[in-house]
Amino acid sequence: MTTTVSTPDDVLRTAYQKSVAAYWNNNQQDPVNLRLGEVDGLYHHHYGIGDYDPAVLEGPDDSRDERIIAELHRLESAQADLVLDHLGPLAPHDRILDAGSGRGGTSFMANQRFGCLVDGVSISEYQVGFANQQAVARGVADKVRFHFRNMLDTGFESGSLAACWTNETTMYVDLSQLYAELSRLLRFGGRYVCVTGCYNDVTGGRSKAVSRIDEHYVCNIHRRSDYFKAMAAHRLVPVSVVDLTALTIPYWELRAKSSVATGIEEAFLTAYREGSFHYLLIAADRV
Amino acid sequence: MTTTVSTPDDVLRTAYQKSVAAYWNNNQQDPVNLRLGEVDGLYHHHYGIGDYDPAVLEGPDDSRDERIIAELHRLESAQADLVLDHLGPLAPHDRILDAGSGRGGTSFMANQRFGCLVDGVSISEYQVGFANQQAVARGVADKVRFHFRNMLDTGFESGSLAACWTNETTMYVDLSQLYAELSRLLRFGGRYVCVTGCYNDVTGGRSKAVSRIDEHYVCNIHRRSDYFKAMAAHRLVPVSVVDLTALTIPYWELRAKSSVATGIEEAFLTAYREGSFHYLLIAADRV
Amino acid sequence: MTTTVSTPDDVLRTAYQKSVAAYWNNNQQDPVNLRLGEVDGLYHHHYGIGDYDPAVLEGPDDSRDERIIAELHRLESAQADLVLDHLGPLAPHDRILDAGSGRGGTSFMANQRFGCLVDGVSISEYQVGFANQQAVARGVADKVRFHFRNMLDTGFESGSLAACWTNETTMYVDLSQLYAELSRLLRFGGRYVCVTGCYNDVTGGRSKAVSRIDEHYVCNIHRRSDYFKAMAAHRLVPVSVVDLTALTIPYWELRAKSSVATGIEEAFLTAYREGSFHYLLIAADRV
Amino acid sequence: MTTTVSTPDDVLRTAYQKSVAAYWNNNQQDPVNLRLGEVDGLYHHHYGIGDYDPAVLEGPDDSRDERIIAELHRLESAQADLVLDHLGPLAPHDRILDAGSGRGGTSFMANQRFGCLVDGVSISEYQVGFANQQAVARGVADKVRFHFRNMLDTGFESGSLAACWTNETTMYVDLSQLYAELSRLLRFGGRYVCVTGCYNDVTGGRSKAVSRIDEHYVCNIHRRSDYFKAMAAHRLVPVSVVDLTALTIPYWELRAKSSVATGIEEAFLTAYREGSFHYLLIAADRV
Amino acid sequence: MTTTVSTPDDVLRTAYQKSVAAYWNNNQQDPVNLRLGEVDGLYHHHYGIGDYDPAVLEGPDDSRDERIIAELHRLESAQADLVLDHLGPLAPHDRILDAGSGRGGTSFMANQRFGCLVDGVSISEYQVGFANQQAVARGVADKVRFHFRNMLDTGFESGSLAACWTNETTMYVDLSQLYAELSRLLRFGGRYVCVTGCYNDVTGGRSKAVSRIDEHYVCNIHRRSDYFKAMAAHRLVPVSVVDLTALTIPYWELRAKSSVATGIEEAFLTAYREGSFHYLLIAADRV
Amino acid sequence: MTTTVSTPDDVLRTAYQKSVAAYWNNNQQDPVNLRLGEVDGLYHHHYGIGDYDPAVLEGPDDSRDERIIAELHRLESAQADLVLDHLGPLAPHDRILDAGSGRGGTSFMANQRFGCLVDGVSISEYQVGFANQQAVARGVADKVRFHFRNMLDTGFESGSLAACWTNETTMYVDLSQLYAELSRLLRFGGRYVCVTGCYNDVTGGRSKAVSRIDEHYVCNIHRRSDYFKAMAAHRLVPVSVVDLTALTIPYWELRAKSSVATGIEEAFLTAYREGSFHYLLIAADRV
Repeated sequence: MTTTVSTPDDVLRTAYQKSVAAYWNNNQQDPVNLRLGEVDGLYHHHYGIGDYDPAVLEGPDDSRDERIIAELHRLESAQADLVLDHLGPLAPHDRILDAGSGRGGTSFMANQRFGCLVDGVSISEYQVGFANQQAVARGVADKVRFHFRNMLDTGFESGSLAACWTNETTMYVDLSQLYAELSRLLRFGGRYVCVTGCYNDVTGGRSKAVSRIDEHYVCNIHRRSDYFKAMAAHRLVPVSVVDLTALTIPYWELRAKSSVATGIEEAFLTAYREGSFHYLLIAADRV
Repeated sequence: MTTTVSTPDDVLRTAYQKSVAAYWNNNQQDPVNLRLGEVDGLYHHHYGIGDYDPAVLEGPDDSRDERIIAELHRLESAQADLVLDHLGPLAPHDRILDAGSGRGGTSFMANQRFGCLVDGVSISEYQVGFANQQAVARGVADKVRFHFRNMLDTGFESGSLAACWTNETTMYVDLSQLYAELSRLLRFGGRYVCVTGCYNDVTGGRSKAVSRIDEHYVCNIHRRSDYFKAMAAHRLVPVSVVDLTALTIPYWELRAKSSVATGIEEAFLTAYREGSFHYLLIAADRV
Repeated sequence: MTTTVSTPDDVLRTAYQKSVAAYWNNNQQDPVNLRLGEVDGLYHHHYGIGDYDPAVLEGPDDSRDERIIAELHRLESAQADLVLDHLGPLAPHDRILDAGSGRGGTSFMANQRFGCLVDGVSISEYQVGFANQQAVARGVADKVRFHFRNMLDTGFESGSLAACWTNETTMYVDLSQLYAELSRLLRFGGRYVCVTGCYNDVTGGRSKAVSRIDEHYVCNIHRRSDYFKAMAAHRLVPVSVVDLTALTIPYWELRAKSSVATGIEEAFLTAYREGSFHYLLIAADRV
Repeated sequence: MTTTVSTPDDVLRTAYQKSVAAYWNNNQQDPVNLRLGEVDGLYHHHYGIGDYDPAVLEGPDDSRDERIIAELHRLESAQADLVLDHLGPLAPHDRILDAGSGRGGTSFMANQRFGCLVDGVSISEYQVGFANQQAVARGVADKVRFHFRNMLDTGFESGSLAACWTNETTMYVDLSQLYAELSRLLRFGGRYVCVTGCYNDVTGGRSKAVSRIDEHYVCNIHRRSDYFKAMAAHRLVPVSVVDLTALTIPYWELRAKSSVATGIEEAFLTAYREGSFHYLLIAADRV
Repeated sequence: MTTTVSTPDDVLRTAYQKSVAAYWNNNQQDPVNLRLGEVDGLYHHHYGIGDYDPAVLEGPDDSRDERIIAELHRLESAQADLVLDHLGPLAPHDRILDAGSGRGGTSFMANQRFGCLVDGVSISEYQVGFANQQAVARGVADKVRFHFRNMLDTGFESGSLAACWTNETTMYVDLSQLYAELSRLLRFGGRYVCVTGCYNDVTGGRSKAVSRIDEHYVCNIHRRSDYFKAMAAHRLVPVSVVDLTALTIPYWELRAKSSVATGIEEAFLTAYREGSFHYLLIAADRV
Repeated sequence: MTTTVSTPDDVLRTAYQKSVAAYWNNNQQDPVNLRLGEVDGLYHHHYGIGDYDPAVLEGPDDSRDERIIAELHRLESAQADLVLDHLGPLAPHDRILDAGSGRGGTSFMANQRFGCLVDGVSISEYQVGFANQQAVARGVADKVRFHFRNMLDTGFESGSLAACWTNETTMYVDLSQLYAELSRLLRFGGRYVCVTGCYNDVTGGRSKAVSRIDEHYVCNIHRRSDYFKAMAAHRLVPVSVVDLTALTIPYWELRAKSSVATGIEEAFLTAYREGSFHYLLIAADRV
């Protein structure tokens, strides 16, 4: 697989994709991602799970913010670990894909755990550059590579992947197109793991809070049912589905109290608490 | 057809429907609907089309607002007239349905033009009450009736309708469920007319401006393609499709300058101008 | 809802259904169901989960079998409890359905936990009679009722159910027909829970061991993917999926050592261990 | 893109396609196409729209036929102009396709208006040869090229087209196969314009007059609904639909009075007037 | 089942259905149906199969026509017998349906063979009246009844039929609508038999000869593939498919030589011989 | 087409396929295939049709078994001949495919009858080797070639085949995947012939006897309806369907009496006689 140089015109095919790329390219100094990443060099672009240690809110004021940030980062890494737990046993010669790889956090953790070859793709040139620099810095540039490519059309070989995941990136794409591509890439029996926010069909429609999140991130949150329909249509068969909603609420409560709060925290908390929104993990097999 | 008394529990089946009903029940004093309706007693809950007369912006200050409001109302009535133009020839004994009838404006105009029996349904009890009072006041309570019912499950007889329309109400419902019901209600050869805002598949995703509109109205704007897919699946075959986007922009420009502006005007203007949003009329036949 | 008396000709519509009914009607003395049920009067027709207490294998010989049987029953009740855990909060006035109710074990446990009205259906007249006698004996005949009906065509009212489950009964029916009926019965937002053995698409076909189970029970084990396809087609949206395979293996190991072993134990253990077969729980919402 | 030489066996894959090709190859001297084309060198193979000037029927007898012919040609060029109006803004470097290009009339008009590269395909070798000679004669052989190819399998590159159209050629092909190919060829956001006669689902079946047209042209007129179903299945989303029926009737009335009438005029007039047949324009976007 | 009196407005729902009804109502004196029926009182509205006896063409001139007519009738009755051969074993209490029953020929033969209750439906009031008179004349009016009803919406009870057939009537209706209705009417395991002309997908499109037949009978000949797609979608599973084309050609050759030839014979012979048209029998089970 | 050397890892993609390959690789000495093949060098892996000659059961004891074996072989060759009868006229330059070719019996008969190029594929390396040796021995190695390939992914060129067949091999594969591949391989108008055992939807489920056959052969017998659904979805249109059940029962009765009986005979006889199983031939065209 050669790393051909892609131009923005190759990769960004619609006005919408351009606006998403612009959002992330221009978002370089957002402390919620940068400051947490600086804790241990794993830069995440997703949320966290698990209870936070209430002790971080107490103690000396001057390090309070630092404690909160370290704790938020710990919860985000715990989420990435949960994704990896569902990727199943993998051998060092297996190839895996991080579809929507951000600054590379989950990719590096996957390589660390399984030793295998990781490719990440992102439509943000800035993120791709940042993540590749991290790969060099971490000494894994031969094993973990990031590409300025569209996850709907990666150009990778059919059947070449043992596993892939989307960690909070599916809300930027059409699921039917995405799963057509991922299904093409995965070998028979390959594993796909998705963590995503999705709105709850049971409440009956997109709530005000969900629309606010969509507006904030220029994204397009899907219904829970959309995931299962699109998987059913593309040979992806669930084997585990876990509702992480209750597990992610503490993260948002803590973040709302932190210096890196962006203002969107209240919308997430409202949506999760009123039940109009889920935080869901789906592990599925390619058959 | 008896007018059975429905309770909110019968009609509002999801948390989402309850929030939509609450929005419209609590929105009773919104001047953008009330003050325009007072012009001639036709209360609309949709937008307008056509160029406004720039003269309304000039002249004496003390009547400027009144002139603008009359002009906005004229453009909204023009839109309703366009809907009726596509309902086709109708006989006085025909039954027609206003699905999402608001305060009844289009229903009264339809009865005036065709003389036929009009039923309107709304999930806002307040709106149903208001519209029925209007029917009495206009002396057409035997011909135009409003029902507190869900347009996804109207309870009307199969094949009983010569025509029906949705005037900016489809963004509150699942299109597949809606067209299953409308297709059931319409007789073979019956006509359906839809005016709606829809987001443009060509730009590739839901834009920030579209999400802002969704949030404002607690609604769920569909893609253009969703309409044609749902119609194809439910025996509704387009015969005319008109892109009204350019025709509705003047209305929003004038409204932005009026005293009844709600603040959402900028989102509409941005969305229409950047091409991420259409204002579309579809006339289709039930086959 | 009246309990009309159904005849076998009403209920059993195919030669296959007749053979399944005959199997269960003629299976009255099978100790694996009877002796375990005698432990506490909850007669199950499904398998168990969880580790068994190795102590039951030790100790005095004369009570060894009794200890094993009590332990197997404990594991089966634990499985039924897991089903109930996923039925979600239910109110005493809610109606719920046990689709394929056997001798009624799970139905009684559901009534005990939630207090609500339970209907069970079975195509074995013998099972229905047995279970109704149990209901009388337990003093809950007004709350828990069993019907000689076909779960593909129950005759119950549309939208009348808050929840329903199938506890190892789906291998006797066409999933598309079953979910059409369950989707009709459940109210919007109602919950469906399924525990089933299914064969694993990933291994690529029905293994010898799976066919042996089919032959033994005159059943028709479905692929894992069949469940998700049929749910996607019938408005049932998963919210939790749990692979219980590892949890059920101890049950089969213990049962193989018991006096009530039927000879099919080896086929289950082979199938589970080689990965050609799953024991799966799916909880889904009706939307 | 090389212009490989295709043989009839490559291009004509079925007995039906061979009979259609034979029809057009043998139709070389049909005056209805030739004499109109001679007016200004734009040879059309489609019908016209708009009112004719009644003056052409009056005045000196010896030039009456010439006047009628010029008027018919004017109406046919007006139709082609309407097709181009819906192709949207195009840049000189864009590639566009005339699918079923006949003697090239619309192709030349498109090149004239937009300056861009036009490829035309036809299964009539005679037509392809004629049109390429026209291209040379008009000095645009480097910009407008005609190919002896099947529009169901053009061999052009995926995503290479900014726009394409079918001007009364879809009745010779299976719509599902055609739109699969056109959807493959168009880039995301590309435009497709169709003008076609289609029979009206509302009248409920193929009328005698429509079958007569089918027989005359060895064609296979589709239902209106077939177009919308096939587009919905192939990522083509309507943005304008115009019923041209009333606009085309004058053309047929004039043609019936001309020396180039072929005898099929009465069938068209009957079908249009009784409502069993539409003349429809659909503009759609590739998404 | 009561025989409610239907009005033409109830039964004939589209302009197309009205034109088909008119065709058959006005076709009362067509000798091809009447003279053959007079042979033995079985009036058929379908074609024949099997070799004709060449002796009928020889012998005395004055009885030649009579001999031919008797022979044509024998071949038509042989075709009806083949339909009945595939209806399978039927008991006297079974109900069966002749969908598009014409003057009742096949219905009477079915009652004679199986003794069971036969209902026939036709949208020609004239045919229904004629056939009911025959039923009285034959003394079977209590067992064989004809109804002025639309076969797309018969009003008969769901699951009430043991068998039904369409003998050359499917070209007047939409197959998807027809099979939805027949599938509703048949009990599980019920048998459906279809004899029809269909055009051959393999030749690639509707030939000139097929369009001529469509025009002649105001019908709409379907593709072969349309039958199998519509059956697959409506739980009708083929068990026998027989290409009768070679078997029906002699009938047409003889008919072309008879006094009752209508002029359409050449189109049938051309279509059958060139392979663009099949004469097909399909027997299928309702599952 | 080069005969690239495939490794088991290329060809056998699932655990299930490996188990099927192992079954046939290890089955080398099974007399039911070997001894019959020795009769005339045509080794079959399918069953037979037609009445056996009862004389083979009489006469001298020492040659009784030989007579039975010759008769069984005659019936198997008659079955293969019936397959070839439905392959239609083929020219010597046509390519045809035996999908699941076993030891090559039908392939050699096809080459003998039509003279054309035959490719056979099998996932048993042993069978491929055996059949290629036969080709050399018969002097047709240039015309009849066997490949160690998966029939779901043959690697042959699209549209390259005039015909193909599956003679009792479809129960090892997913029909949707198989017909996608065969439809890709066949040219427009190409012929597909299938002989298979399938279970009868009408009896309503997989019977005990059918599951026993599945277990015996590690196969996965499909429902009759599955064949017609999968063909409808993949452009394969039936032209003949023949229920061979009654014709194959004598073969099984004779085989049960022979020295080569494997014990599975009773399951076949039970399944065929009770109607839960069919032996079906389907001939279909690729359109």
